Amino acid sequence: MSDIKKYVEEHKDRFIQELVDLLKIPSISADSAYKQDVLKTADAVKEKLQEAGCDHTEICETPGYPIVYGEKIIDKNLPTVLVYGHYDVQPPDPLDLWESPPFEPVIKETKLHPQGAIFARGACDDKGQMYMHVKALEYMTRNNELPCNVKFMIEGEEEVGSANLGWFIERNQDKLSNDVILISDTGMISKDVPSVTTGLRGLSYMEVEVTGPNRDLHSGLYGGAVANPINILAKMIASLQDENNHITIPGFYDRVEELTDEEREKMAEAPFDLEEYKEKLDIGDVHGEKGYSTLERASIRPTLDVNGIWGGYTGEGAKTVLPSKAYAKISMRLVPNQDWKEISELFKKHFESIAPKSVKVKVNTHHGGQGYVTPIDTLEYQAANDAYAEAFGKEPIPQRSGGSIPIVSLFEKELKSKTILMGFGLDTDAIHSPNEHFGVWNYLKGIETIPLFFKHFTKLKSEE
Amino acid sequence: MSDIKKYVEEHKDRFIQELVDLLKIPSISADSAYKQDVLKTADAVKEKLQEAGCDHTEICETPGYPIVYGEKIIDKNLPTVLVYGHYDVQPPDPLDLWESPPFEPVIKETKLHPQGAIFARGACDDKGQMYMHVKALEYMTRNNELPCNVKFMIEGEEEVGSANLGWFIERNQDKLSNDVILISDTGMISKDVPSVTTGLRGLSYMEVEVTGPNRDLHSGLYGGAVANPINILAKMIASLQDENNHITIPGFYDRVEELTDEEREKMAEAPFDLEEYKEKLDIGDVHGEKGYSTLERASIRPTLDVNGIWGGYTGEGAKTVLPSKAYAKISMRLVPNQDWKEISELFKKHFESIAPKSVKVKVNTHHGGQGYVTPIDTLEYQAANDAYAEAFGKEPIPQRSGGSIPIVSLFEKELKSKTILMGFGLDTDAIHSPNEHFGVWNYLKGIETIPLFFKHFTKLKSEE
Repeated sequence: MSDIKKYVEEHKDRFIQELVDLLKIPSISADSAYKQDVLKTADAVKEKLQEAGCDHTEICETPGYPIVYGEKIIDKNLPTVLVYGHYDVQPPDPLDLWESPPFEPVIKETKLHPQGAIFARGACDDKGQMYMHVKALEYMTRNNELPCNVKFMIEGEEEVGSANLGWFIERNQDKLSNDVILISDTGMISKDVPSVTTGLRGLSYMEVEVTGPNRDLHSGLYGGAVANPINILAKMIASLQDENNHITIPGFYDRVEELTDEEREKMAEAPFDLEEYKEKLDIGDVHGEKGYSTLERASIRPTLDVNGIWGGYTGEGAKTVLPSKAYAKISMRLVPNQDWKEISELFKKHFESIAPKSVKVKVNTHHGGQGYVTPIDTLEYQAANDAYAEAFGKEPIPQRSGGSIPIVSLFEKELKSKTILMGFGLDTDAIHSPNEHFGVWNYLKGIETIPLFFKHFTKLKSEE
Repeated sequence: MSDIKKYVEEHKDRFIQELVDLLKIPSISADSAYKQDVLKTADAVKEKLQEAGCDHTEICETPGYPIVYGEKIIDKNLPTVLVYGHYDVQPPDPLDLWESPPFEPVIKETKLHPQGAIFARGACDDKGQMYMHVKALEYMTRNNELPCNVKFMIEGEEEVGSANLGWFIERNQDKLSNDVILISDTGMISKDVPSVTTGLRGLSYMEVEVTGPNRDLHSGLYGGAVANPINILAKMIASLQDENNHITIPGFYDRVEELTDEEREKMAEAPFDLEEYKEKLDIGDVHGEKGYSTLERASIRPTLDVNGIWGGYTGEGAKTVLPSKAYAKISMRLVPNQDWKEISELFKKHFESIAPKSVKVKVNTHHGGQGYVTPIDTLEYQAANDAYAEAFGKEPIPQRSGGSIPIVSLFEKELKSKTILMGFGLDTDAIHSPNEHFGVWNYLKGIETIPLFFKHFTKLKSEE
């Protein structure tokens, strides 16, 4: 057994307990009611970085939630790994679908996780995956195995669009200078099929408000004669996708990268069982853009989803109201080359243009981020490949993901370094959903794999 | 000044105060949290009927909220007027749009109501209009002016579809026997244009649930590949009306009564200012079925309105969720001859049929009621006509209303008598909306007009 495997085995109960303690703090960045908890989590992360061996840690203020910074510089001539993660979490609702309270972590065995999984909001996304890096640092510093410099940048606004991360990076380019950025905020194919995420979708997240009459009306006296903003909103949303589920916003596909047949064929080789996919989600059929497979729809194609809708009477029973207003939160996943700001503008312009005269429409951009694709013929990717090969006994599969980490393309632009996305979560971890969890095996395997990346990266850099 | 005018003038402060006291009880039948308040309101109405001169009053239990019954029988050979009203009210939300709390009545002057209007949920619909009858009875009994028998049937479930009123009527036909049913739960054209409502629309109120995947998903990982129930619900709702705003449910129009050109021409003579209508509602345009005027759309044509919609994340900020479920409350206003049970079935069948395989759909019927048209060449209408002529100095205009009092057609069927709809509210009273109010002038004018109906009806019956 390698040293790291031994160390993880010896300390695993404490590693789990420390994560559980972190998960108990409801650091919901989207809801200002939890502000004190978000700040408390930042403090906890700073303390843990210091304990794990950072020489210097600090809470860096921003116009929003602070960024936790930490570093251990052992030799300025050695390369530097910058670890990025986030300590904020998604809102937990709908609460009634959680089998245990989202901020009271419990460890339960599941079919996929016979060693147990930690159930809590943020267990995987991203407290669990972020904390793997803290514990990997602990191993490296306590056992004199840290081969290079390391910096940590752990933010508290990832789940609300990283609004102030760009601001922070611009102002701290020297402090953040690095040779590679390492992030664990994605997943892998399965426990025995390790993978490295090489592509992410961008995101444009909008909110729309449709106003009909200036007050709620009686649907009997006005219904049929005055535009109902819910009916109009439904028509407008429906018109955003045609009968082939193509998005109808003019210009939307102009910059979409079309993969070659060869690339699509290679993608199709990834293990995927459509029947199992439908069964797990209990759906009668999949649903998406004509001409593309399910894996393609969920990774290389842009999408448009309504993430929330509300208007009128939504309580118990019935109310015959013709409401004044209706609202929706609508987000688009974007593929490389689509610019989220341009897409947000195209959406706004189109949505306003299709509103009938009988209503007024407001369109606001919540946030967004660019898509990202990393090449696999780089030293950075090679280092990740070697780390997985050593930890798992097999090479990882490069994989395009449908998710977004909006800040990744900004990293590359501002910090001039490549990003490696080493995710240890599984598709079934229910991130952003009730009953989010993270396998104990996955958590410990991440802690075991990360030092190997540091080792191989430093080695490859020295051979350059 | 007539006796009734004098009596109203002398007692108006007390009449207003008694109504204010009744309005303070939040008798929201749609929300079970207010059960005790609904029951308390029934008790208060019973007490007031007794005080006003009923010989006998009782709280009649039903499978739902009780019906308050009261009667004063002066001579079995004289005709009997049955007064129907309701003591329950609509839910007050959205609360933040109320200028004063909905259950803390205040009297404020408005442009239309220089004598003041009472602002509270239920001020007009229907506590205020129902209570006019209680005070009219008080006048008639205290001044020996009651010319015939009177019965009261005041229910507590009108705002949730009068689910148990049919049950009650079937079991109490003798008790409720009458010569005419008198209801004040509608409006009049304006303070100087009195009108009697001669038609009401029926109602079919449905609730739909669309289920996509069996749990909330991350919209990045699944978006584009798995049906989003909100997007699907929007498409389904949008498809219920075509580009001419005709309802697309097969069979929906089969029994719709088509008015003759002559009838439509007569309708078009009613005073109506489209520009003023748009201005009051602050809308850029009206919106409705092609080929019909605004007044027609709001009265003689059936409609389909979404009264409420919800699904996904509706809180502050953004959440990139592909939700498991989306819901809507959808109601259809029906015209005479359309059968609400048949229409509810047609809706259910159609809505289920248009659901794609990628989702599951549940359709439930909340409640409904038949439309109603009363002829104007009857003794009952003549009595109302004469009462208005005496009180207002001019004859009322017969008017078709878009609203529904689902129980009216049942009354005719079960109790074999005609219904007269004497409404004293105005379109601007904001019933079912925030800041519902009822003009003090309208309230007192109603109290003054009602005894005149009793007088003329008894007189005309004696001449039969």
